[in-house]
Amino acid sequence: MRVLVVNPNTTASMTAKIGEAARAASSAGTEIIAVNPDMGPASIEGYYDEALSLPGLLKEIAKGEAGRADGAVIACFDDTGLDAARALANMPVVGICEAALAAAGMIATRISVVTTLSRSVVPIEALVRRYGFAERAYVHAADIPVLSLEDPKSDASSILRAAIAAALKADKSDAVVLGCAGMADLARDLSAEFGVPVVDGVSAGVRMVEALVGLGLKTSKSGAYATPLGKIYTGALAGFAPDAIIRG
Amino acid sequence: MRVLVVNPNTTASMTAKIGEAARAASSAGTEIIAVNPDMGPASIEGYYDEALSLPGLLKEIAKGEAGRADGAVIACFDDTGLDAARALANMPVVGICEAALAAAGMIATRISVVTTLSRSVVPIEALVRRYGFAERAYVHAADIPVLSLEDPKSDASSILRAAIAAALKADKSDAVVLGCAGMADLARDLSAEFGVPVVDGVSAGVRMVEALVGLGLKTSKSGAYATPLGKIYTGALAGFAPDAIIRG
Amino acid sequence: MRVLVVNPNTTASMTAKIGEAARAASSAGTEIIAVNPDMGPASIEGYYDEALSLPGLLKEIAKGEAGRADGAVIACFDDTGLDAARALANMPVVGICEAALAAAGMIATRISVVTTLSRSVVPIEALVRRYGFAERAYVHAADIPVLSLEDPKSDASSILRAAIAAALKADKSDAVVLGCAGMADLARDLSAEFGVPVVDGVSAGVRMVEALVGLGLKTSKSGAYATPLGKIYTGALAGFAPDAIIRG
Amino acid sequence: MRVLVVNPNTTASMTAKIGEAARAASSAGTEIIAVNPDMGPASIEGYYDEALSLPGLLKEIAKGEAGRADGAVIACFDDTGLDAARALANMPVVGICEAALAAAGMIATRISVVTTLSRSVVPIEALVRRYGFAERAYVHAADIPVLSLEDPKSDASSILRAAIAAALKADKSDAVVLGCAGMADLARDLSAEFGVPVVDGVSAGVRMVEALVGLGLKTSKSGAYATPLGKIYTGALAGFAPDAIIRG
Amino acid sequence: MRVLVVNPNTTASMTAKIGEAARAASSAGTEIIAVNPDMGPASIEGYYDEALSLPGLLKEIAKGEAGRADGAVIACFDDTGLDAARALANMPVVGICEAALAAAGMIATRISVVTTLSRSVVPIEALVRRYGFAERAYVHAADIPVLSLEDPKSDASSILRAAIAAALKADKSDAVVLGCAGMADLARDLSAEFGVPVVDGVSAGVRMVEALVGLGLKTSKSGAYATPLGKIYTGALAGFAPDAIIRG
Amino acid sequence: MRVLVVNPNTTASMTAKIGEAARAASSAGTEIIAVNPDMGPASIEGYYDEALSLPGLLKEIAKGEAGRADGAVIACFDDTGLDAARALANMPVVGICEAALAAAGMIATRISVVTTLSRSVVPIEALVRRYGFAERAYVHAADIPVLSLEDPKSDASSILRAAIAAALKADKSDAVVLGCAGMADLARDLSAEFGVPVVDGVSAGVRMVEALVGLGLKTSKSGAYATPLGKIYTGALAGFAPDAIIRG
Repeated sequence: MRVLVVNPNTTASMTAKIGEAARAASSAGTEIIAVNPDMGPASIEGYYDEALSLPGLLKEIAKGEAGRADGAVIACFDDTGLDAARALANMPVVGICEAALAAAGMIATRISVVTTLSRSVVPIEALVRRYGFAERAYVHAADIPVLSLEDPKSDASSILRAAIAAALKADKSDAVVLGCAGMADLARDLSAEFGVPVVDGVSAGVRMVEALVGLGLKTSKSGAYATPLGKIYTGALAGFAPDAIIRG
Repeated sequence: MRVLVVNPNTTASMTAKIGEAARAASSAGTEIIAVNPDMGPASIEGYYDEALSLPGLLKEIAKGEAGRADGAVIACFDDTGLDAARALANMPVVGICEAALAAAGMIATRISVVTTLSRSVVPIEALVRRYGFAERAYVHAADIPVLSLEDPKSDASSILRAAIAAALKADKSDAVVLGCAGMADLARDLSAEFGVPVVDGVSAGVRMVEALVGLGLKTSKSGAYATPLGKIYTGALAGFAPDAIIRG
Repeated sequence: MRVLVVNPNTTASMTAKIGEAARAASSAGTEIIAVNPDMGPASIEGYYDEALSLPGLLKEIAKGEAGRADGAVIACFDDTGLDAARALANMPVVGICEAALAAAGMIATRISVVTTLSRSVVPIEALVRRYGFAERAYVHAADIPVLSLEDPKSDASSILRAAIAAALKADKSDAVVLGCAGMADLARDLSAEFGVPVVDGVSAGVRMVEALVGLGLKTSKSGAYATPLGKIYTGALAGFAPDAIIRG
Repeated sequence: MRVLVVNPNTTASMTAKIGEAARAASSAGTEIIAVNPDMGPASIEGYYDEALSLPGLLKEIAKGEAGRADGAVIACFDDTGLDAARALANMPVVGICEAALAAAGMIATRISVVTTLSRSVVPIEALVRRYGFAERAYVHAADIPVLSLEDPKSDASSILRAAIAAALKADKSDAVVLGCAGMADLARDLSAEFGVPVVDGVSAGVRMVEALVGLGLKTSKSGAYATPLGKIYTGALAGFAPDAIIRG
Repeated sequence: MRVLVVNPNTTASMTAKIGEAARAASSAGTEIIAVNPDMGPASIEGYYDEALSLPGLLKEIAKGEAGRADGAVIACFDDTGLDAARALANMPVVGICEAALAAAGMIATRISVVTTLSRSVVPIEALVRRYGFAERAYVHAADIPVLSLEDPKSDASSILRAAIAAALKADKSDAVVLGCAGMADLARDLSAEFGVPVVDGVSAGVRMVEALVGLGLKTSKSGAYATPLGKIYTGALAGFAPDAIIRG
Repeated sequence: MRVLVVNPNTTASMTAKIGEAARAASSAGTEIIAVNPDMGPASIEGYYDEALSLPGLLKEIAKGEAGRADGAVIACFDDTGLDAARALANMPVVGICEAALAAAGMIATRISVVTTLSRSVVPIEALVRRYGFAERAYVHAADIPVLSLEDPKSDASSILRAAIAAALKADKSDAVVLGCAGMADLARDLSAEFGVPVVDGVSAGVRMVEALVGLGLKTSKSGAYATPLGKIYTGALAGFAPDAIIRG
């Protein structure tokens, strides 16, 4: 099975770390293809970055499916472009916020989500509601920039730990979800440290895609995820016309 | 007062019609600047088109604000890119679905929304929930392509009328919201025909922006709509780095 | 355009202040008619006062419409009698809680509402739910009597400021709504002081009515706001029989 | 135990029928005091009538409590003035919509509410949400005037039966709630006819008040139902100043 | 009237205390039959105990109905087995969480529920949502074992008092519900101490069942509470086959 | 990996079919252990059967974990005993309704659930709300007994097909979930027939458990799923005391 993992920002070191986490989490027999777009923002911190990451992200989805990926993970905790990717692809596509909540929801009752920047809290709360976790998942920000997690000299890790401790207490929760793809390598240690399950979305995303592919399920094409209608695209995005992009 | 009205698709004839409706709805003293992007899809029908319309739409928002617009309307009923536009701009930005529901909600109790394609029902229902109308607005599709509304020889108008009649009966509603910017010219006639208020989002959007500007309100910059953080953007979207685009 | 602004309590000094705020917020060409009933309570603090303000309030609505008002604002943050006023009138009628939330919701993501008495928190929370803001507006009381805002010697203003500061922090909100018509004159200063949009309902109500009138919208008469049925009214309220009151 | 039953409209024949139903439903040892206001509308059909019934209704609540009633039922299915009555009284006060839903909810899973006029559907749906039955109670109108139920020559009863049959089928419900105090005498026959529990609000209201009084519970005075603050009331409602009305 | 009160755990001293509270709360003319199963756990603290209490509890329901009980109360605040008991019985069956919330909801606006163990908070929150109190009831744990309430030497009572004081302040609530059948004897004193209504579920359950029986209501048999279908039961539970258990 | 699949009813032929479906859906390297209790009902049709299946089901969970299962699926669409099983076990435990909805929710937008008996609709709707699918999953009954699916001579299959066709049309859905473990063998054919994804819960449950085990996640023991407290169990269920059952 080939699972495409798209980091929607353009920072290759983060893609490498995400790919490593994805591989570590994958089943024997799963090939992980970790990519990032060649256009768009270096990190996704808020609505504007999210919007601008979409063309590059969708191009990677199209390329991946043309390259015979069986399913895809979108490795940004905002689940950036998830609906558009599903409309574009036939393979299943899963967001890491969605996957982490689904997994955490099967082993715990109340969930603390800890993300990076406070400006991401509102968009993630919207996802929490969308995925049906409004009554039992609570979102907190550690107030650390996304790329500080890449920097071993920053104190991002200790700030994150303090935020997790505070969230567990305030939420009376029994599981933690890490709210950023850049935290993918920390889950196991944090779980040991805090004595509760700690779920990383990248890992959960890979396993959820494996599950869907294993079930023979593909994205439904009879509703809102119907294949995009052929039409003219112009300007810098002319190459993104559905016919063109689906052909690869 | 200068109100920017962005049609996020690239079809100039539709921009012209939207501009005309916006002008007809605006107060004396309001200048309407109706534009469309030079990149992206010719119409927005579903999630994929919506995603690809964003860079062009956001460029128009940035250009408009640099050109001293006081507020902006996003003239697509999916309220495409609304959050990203608010993060980018200081001026108030309003979506036409949002504006139409807000207006209809102040004069009626139950609202039938009638849009074009069935694939748009699910995204519009998500907006209905987001704006707090889940308990009283119901979304229906007439199953007509967006651009058929531009074609006087199509039977789009009569199909739309039948869909409105059916929705009013099924929903026991007392107002109609037209679920596509391309229907902006039909509201008055339909209201007379059906004997209930019929709200067009473009008109409502213009008046809501006028209201916000009149109140001296600007988009809040202290939460999720904080100004995008400066960072590297690469590839075809290099020019969209926040610093660059905000400078204009 | 003539906009009726009804202060539903009988305190003329508060009506004057509300009228002034309404005029300051209105568009050029809008005439503000600020009135209060000649019967009922001197201030509205809780459910009982609210109920007893209704006959006087509704008489003012009827008189205003007979006097060719184009729309009306009910200037009490409980949105006292809003549904009854809409059933009575053909013109649009807007509540100041409703208008303030609608405006704040278009420029911010999370909203702190700060009202006067703690007994008003529960009724305002019910409005917050009704208008669809349950997931993003939070209600607080400053614990000051309504009419203390009229008294320059009281420390109402400093108590209110402290309550706003506490609410912004606790709610992680990015806008404030002032939860009492008597605070209409404070919005601009508070916005400057706290660095976030501060919305006054009287101002927002005037602009929302202007928008609805500008759109040519009237209250729908085909549903729950249908014109009251003619019937016998007796006792001290005999004069309020629908036929009589609508005739003016 | 003395239970006050207030019919908030002024139609004495309806009060008599309600009183009879209340007596039939009451426990041995309960005295039913059925009254109606001497001011206000002859029937309550929609928001305007509801608003105008409040002063008379509240006067009856105050008189009843001064006359040593132990609890009160408001016998209109809109639960007219319930919150204001609770703020005014120390005794428990129950609405018949509230009581009927509470009772039906303990013996059935899905509930069809059948009321009189279609204009009452939206206000009753708001009560259904308020009382927590949004997921399992459905409101229908038989489209019969309230007072037609008093007229033995009308075909109101057969229209009501048809509406109940249709509602049970459409809702897949297992209980019926009669949505008008004027239907109080029909519950037993309809239950036999349709083979499901049929709940009348007047009866349920009496029994719920008996339960609360039996439990020694009084309306809480520490929150939104706090005793109205003393203040000046003017005009035709001067006599309704809290101090005056509570003194009786 | 005969009201069966089933304590679903097997601790006879707790059954005695519950029976006493039930008798104290019942109307003249009501006979209370307080029982507990002869199989299952000594106390119900969490989901596992709850599940294992069901066969014994249901046997008591069947025996009670065969013994001509008119209605039943399930005296555990988890409302253990409520739906199964309703499916089994024709008489009305009420849970004490359900009854306490219904009663509290008619005399107050915001409710603090205080239970024993923190592991019970999540299941009780699920009940709060089920009964429609999500917007106004808040659940807290005092962190005391259920049976410590039976031990006069424990400090359970003072810990409970501290938890109530903290909950009233944090929730800004105006009533308290005691979240354990073992607290049935404390309500009156706590109400005097805290100056707000304090509702005990056992008492409320008895009065609610009396109300339903007085109304002539039985559990609906046409929906999800339909009589269990006859079928083979095997092993230690062979005697629980619906035919066998309903015959008694 | 060893995955325990518990059919909570006692019908061995259904266990065999479920085991076969589980094996067909499982990954290479997964061993499926399909069991059913030796006590309880032959099929689970409604709340009463569900309650009585719990002791046997929980014994199988305990035995399975003692026998080194890595995770468990509860193979009844009511997700019978899911919370109790999670409290008992350390391994992850998944319900088939939960798993099917989670999978369907990642590949489609609106979901039709088609179950057997109409009495199961209300309990399944409660699960739909619990798992966060209230806004997009709709439950229907085909009105066929559970065990008719085991009988090749019954017309259960054609009735089911008609119910699916009707549900897809009424719900405007783009995926189907089969609402009974006994339908596990039909998913692939039905998907081909109806042209939309059709999800079987048994298969989805196996793959979800594999995913959780693969992620190294275990049921959280710090909240409502904490290990049952040791205590006395009496009568026919004495052997179910937590200490005893966990020791195996």
